[in-house]
Amino acid sequence: MIRIIILGSGNVAKHLYKAFMNIKAINVIQCYNRKGILLHPDQELGDITNDLQVLKEADLYIVAVSDDAIKTVSDGLMFNDRLVVHTSGSSPLHTLNNANKRGVFYPLQSFSQQKDIDFESIPFCLEAEHEKDLALLKKVAGSLSKNVYEISSEQRNTLHVAAVFANNFTNYLFSTAKNICDTQKVPFEILHALILETATKITEIDPDLAQTGPALRNDTKTIQRHLNTLSNQEHKNIYQALTAAIQSKHGKKL
Amino acid sequence: MIRIIILGSGNVAKHLYKAFMNIKAINVIQCYNRKGILLHPDQELGDITNDLQVLKEADLYIVAVSDDAIKTVSDGLMFNDRLVVHTSGSSPLHTLNNANKRGVFYPLQSFSQQKDIDFESIPFCLEAEHEKDLALLKKVAGSLSKNVYEISSEQRNTLHVAAVFANNFTNYLFSTAKNICDTQKVPFEILHALILETATKITEIDPDLAQTGPALRNDTKTIQRHLNTLSNQEHKNIYQALTAAIQSKHGKKL
Repeated sequence: MIRIIILGSGNVAKHLYKAFMNIKAINVIQCYNRKGILLHPDQELGDITNDLQVLKEADLYIVAVSDDAIKTVSDGLMFNDRLVVHTSGSSPLHTLNNANKRGVFYPLQSFSQQKDIDFESIPFCLEAEHEKDLALLKKVAGSLSKNVYEISSEQRNTLHVAAVFANNFTNYLFSTAKNICDTQKVPFEILHALILETATKITEIDPDLAQTGPALRNDTKTIQRHLNTLSNQEHKNIYQALTAAIQSKHGKKL
Repeated sequence: MIRIIILGSGNVAKHLYKAFMNIKAINVIQCYNRKGILLHPDQELGDITNDLQVLKEADLYIVAVSDDAIKTVSDGLMFNDRLVVHTSGSSPLHTLNNANKRGVFYPLQSFSQQKDIDFESIPFCLEAEHEKDLALLKKVAGSLSKNVYEISSEQRNTLHVAAVFANNFTNYLFSTAKNICDTQKVPFEILHALILETATKITEIDPDLAQTGPALRNDTKTIQRHLNTLSNQEHKNIYQALTAAIQSKHGKKL
């Protein structure tokens, strides 16, 4: 039985707690957060604390707090030489206090409170200072997901930047597409199938090969008509910047 | 039995031909293209022509050619008062010669030759000058897909611009994410689940509500670290432009 303590009360903490409930080999023996709130309605009040001094002995402490709070929480731990990991995509391993054995347990997904998470397809990016600790993290992550990767802090930082392009910026483009549809009362749902196909395609072929559209074809007539159609200046700017970027990238190849 | 003639030999023409083969109520009685090539290995040679003068009488002529060729092909038709449609997302209905009854039969998807198309989930955007013609187009589109919409030429132009954001520009961001991963030998497949989740999410909630990330949080520390991580100037430019756009959009709401 692997004994785990989860520190934090955000979406990652809650989703991990819920997922671990279904894993027989794992027992979340205690949770900590500043307000002492439950992570799940079924959790027992006695298993939750807002006092770092009363933390039990466990095999793994998962610090699932905001990036800014990782250092404070890990500095506040009253024990040494135990395995303490954070769950952040953008904080290096050494953000954790070196009084304990450090690691990273980063589920790469955008978590929201409303939506249930199926961990099975979520990649876990792991890092640890010691082989033995990495093995334990692999066991824990492997009990939730089929996609487990060993990733250095430097690689994780790069991955986090790439995720901003693939998730945050992409979502902004979807929201822009919806705004554009709204101007002419076109139902945004017409674009759903195209959006799903666009995403699915790059899991099958290299996105460079999947590139299409007026920018790639250098179809200046269509580009000009599109710019005339856009009434919002911010949308025009983004259209021009991305058109230029596609042409700069693919032009070089020709 | 609805008699159809397909004009053109590109991806849309080929995919439509193949899909119609499975529809009992539809018979593609002839195909035209300049080179007289088959749209499918099972097609009979006698059903294909490269001569507009020998086109048979049909209930529907589908001009599935490039935008630039729509006018030329429709001007070359030797008959009047029959139903002629194009399949373009970006050409207005009146691109077609008004000697015939005109319409638009636009399957909104990015077609590639390699990939099989399941028309069932592809939205068809229809337009016609006469109610009776629209009814026929609805019947034909409805035999292939569950998602059939009546869309004016103006709406279709708007939709086409929105599709550039949702498909072309999004794909460019995916390709950028892959390039960034490559710089640190991070497997791009780690991002696949996130990309699929990002796309799926906006079919369930408004993309404005799905927005997350350092730009939205105005997390200047992370933004600066990301910019330092990016070595490619084009990637830096896009990062800054999209960060500014997200902040301009969501800042106004606060």
